[in-house]
Amino acid sequence: MSQEQTTSTWAIPLVPAFDEAAARAARAHQGALTKPPGSLGRLEDLAVAYAGQRGRFPVAPPSAVEVWIFAGDHGVVAEGVSAYPAEVTPAMVANFLGGGAAINALARVHGFGLGIADVGVASPIPAVSHRGDVRFLDARIRRGTRNFRKEPALSRAEAAAAMEVGLRVAREADDRGADLLVGGEMGIGNTTAAAALVCAISGDDPSDVVGAGTGLDEAGRARKATVVREALALHRPDPKDPLGLLAAVGGLEIAALAGFMLGGASRRVPVVVDGFICTAAALVAVLVAPAVRSYLVASHLSAERGHRRACELLGLAPLVDLGLRLGEGTGGVLGAHLLRAAVALQAEMATFDSAAVPDRAR
Amino acid sequence: MSQEQTTSTWAIPLVPAFDEAAARAARAHQGALTKPPGSLGRLEDLAVAYAGQRGRFPVAPPSAVEVWIFAGDHGVVAEGVSAYPAEVTPAMVANFLGGGAAINALARVHGFGLGIADVGVASPIPAVSHRGDVRFLDARIRRGTRNFRKEPALSRAEAAAAMEVGLRVAREADDRGADLLVGGEMGIGNTTAAAALVCAISGDDPSDVVGAGTGLDEAGRARKATVVREALALHRPDPKDPLGLLAAVGGLEIAALAGFMLGGASRRVPVVVDGFICTAAALVAVLVAPAVRSYLVASHLSAERGHRRACELLGLAPLVDLGLRLGEGTGGVLGAHLLRAAVALQAEMATFDSAAVPDRAR
Repeated sequence: MSQEQTTSTWAIPLVPAFDEAAARAARAHQGALTKPPGSLGRLEDLAVAYAGQRGRFPVAPPSAVEVWIFAGDHGVVAEGVSAYPAEVTPAMVANFLGGGAAINALARVHGFGLGIADVGVASPIPAVSHRGDVRFLDARIRRGTRNFRKEPALSRAEAAAAMEVGLRVAREADDRGADLLVGGEMGIGNTTAAAALVCAISGDDPSDVVGAGTGLDEAGRARKATVVREALALHRPDPKDPLGLLAAVGGLEIAALAGFMLGGASRRVPVVVDGFICTAAALVAVLVAPAVRSYLVASHLSAERGHRRACELLGLAPLVDLGLRLGEGTGGVLGAHLLRAAVALQAEMATFDSAAVPDRAR
Repeated sequence: MSQEQTTSTWAIPLVPAFDEAAARAARAHQGALTKPPGSLGRLEDLAVAYAGQRGRFPVAPPSAVEVWIFAGDHGVVAEGVSAYPAEVTPAMVANFLGGGAAINALARVHGFGLGIADVGVASPIPAVSHRGDVRFLDARIRRGTRNFRKEPALSRAEAAAAMEVGLRVAREADDRGADLLVGGEMGIGNTTAAAALVCAISGDDPSDVVGAGTGLDEAGRARKATVVREALALHRPDPKDPLGLLAAVGGLEIAALAGFMLGGASRRVPVVVDGFICTAAALVAVLVAPAVRSYLVASHLSAERGHRRACELLGLAPLVDLGLRLGEGTGGVLGAHLLRAAVALQAEMATFDSAAVPDRAR
């Protein structure tokens, strides 16, 4: 359905405007439901926004939620920036396919679909008994990024190609009827790339943004900040150029996530943003098309150091803070569930009139 | 199953000790799962605690969750302490029975059972098409409390009888196989009673604890604080005497909730604590039997002013802060869902060994 404007490198989708009229109708309806005005707090805001995102009121609660994990490796792990070896990336992809990871358990609990897209894992995925209920997309652009402390992580064409994969995944999900998307990621080293992107966009010093990732100690974190600082000094990416940023210090899964958010927004399917890496991808997506922002739902505040700042830059307030720092879309699933519950409340509650409940004296 | 010690007024159940060994086994298992240690944050703590509460590891995720709303009216509404008239209490009970309230929508979304116990509504419940999937217990002790600004809200015998109703509800749920309970309440005027209880227990000044309830303005809130201050000056309840507190300034639904928490704890069924009123009831339950505390799960931080302080007094940290201030158990349901997801993660995730994922170099 979406029209596109073709550029020299890739097709930027048109993002429709958030439907203010539908949101206003939802807000008015919230005031008629059998509860004190505003007493459902942020659940009211989520449900109102969903009407504006989907472009209609009444709007049914999302019933076909798809979680997509984008996986890719990072050449910068050669600099000792991660507590885990790069071999964990393909092993975890196999774990996703076999159903044993945290995101599998969470997707099952919620009845959400789950898919994995390999956009840049560096080594072969180990053989595994692949569960039929987990989708897999083999869309590897290259075997991990280059070490961005020494050279650009990607070419612009590679970054654009990874973004196109995410776009395609979101559009195909919409074609299947998905009414809410959750993005997640797997990639040893990707908190380093995400921190570099956030610093490049914000101008912040890496020591304020770089976190412990999967479990660095303080010396490791300092080393990681130095790597980011050196990379930014080397590449000096233009903070307004999303493809340039991704090419300099990004990641294939981060580019794909940005495309996924663009793709969802282009089809009026909101995308739940998980933790630090997904928020960095969201910042890139919003650079490409600012209208994407109104289709993003921040889920949780990650324990990763730079996440609060990244959320501020994005202008979105996370719903919950449970100390999660796993990635994979785990916090995003919890946010998607809250959104679903919020829209169910909006859609199913009685009104003061219909239930003959006395409203306050006015 | 539970042994009891009979007192002159009522039977206090014995609460078994939290099973530290089961919790330790769960904690050790968390460290073997395919995720960086601690990366699931508070979800890990919830799942570990559930093992200790249920007294076994491995422990299956809760699959038979029951939400019980205790309803009662408050004589103190004659003092103008609520934005809504007392007629809303029976009308909302009818709304619960008819399936149109927020808690109905939330229970449905989560597949939780829902029951309503009338322990003290002041006027008849309007006729309604009663949904077969909503339990109803007619256990009215009296038609609302007395106006505690002028006289004790209840006799000690009435308070004990209401507590016994809650105990019985929890035990019968356990007999049916319930593995997690959520308490909720409905009662116009009950934030006033809850604030009075919190102030009586803590010695805090009412102006720091009394909140807007269903929507008082600042003048209304000041009037409500004055009513609480006058009531406490009149009754001077002993802060260590739970029945005396309930009799002086409590509520029938608050007493029943305290009994419900005691009953759940006595059977090793954890009870999720909703908002301000439920937290006040929890403070009373813990006065009766301090061991109850380890069976309580704080769910959300209510927007009602005194809730943060009440949680501090109880020593429990709410899981989420979504600006809810509705009651009915709505925040409790969200907390119960997080607990269920947390235990599913603990029960279903693969280990580093079983999934052949490389653990970090040690």
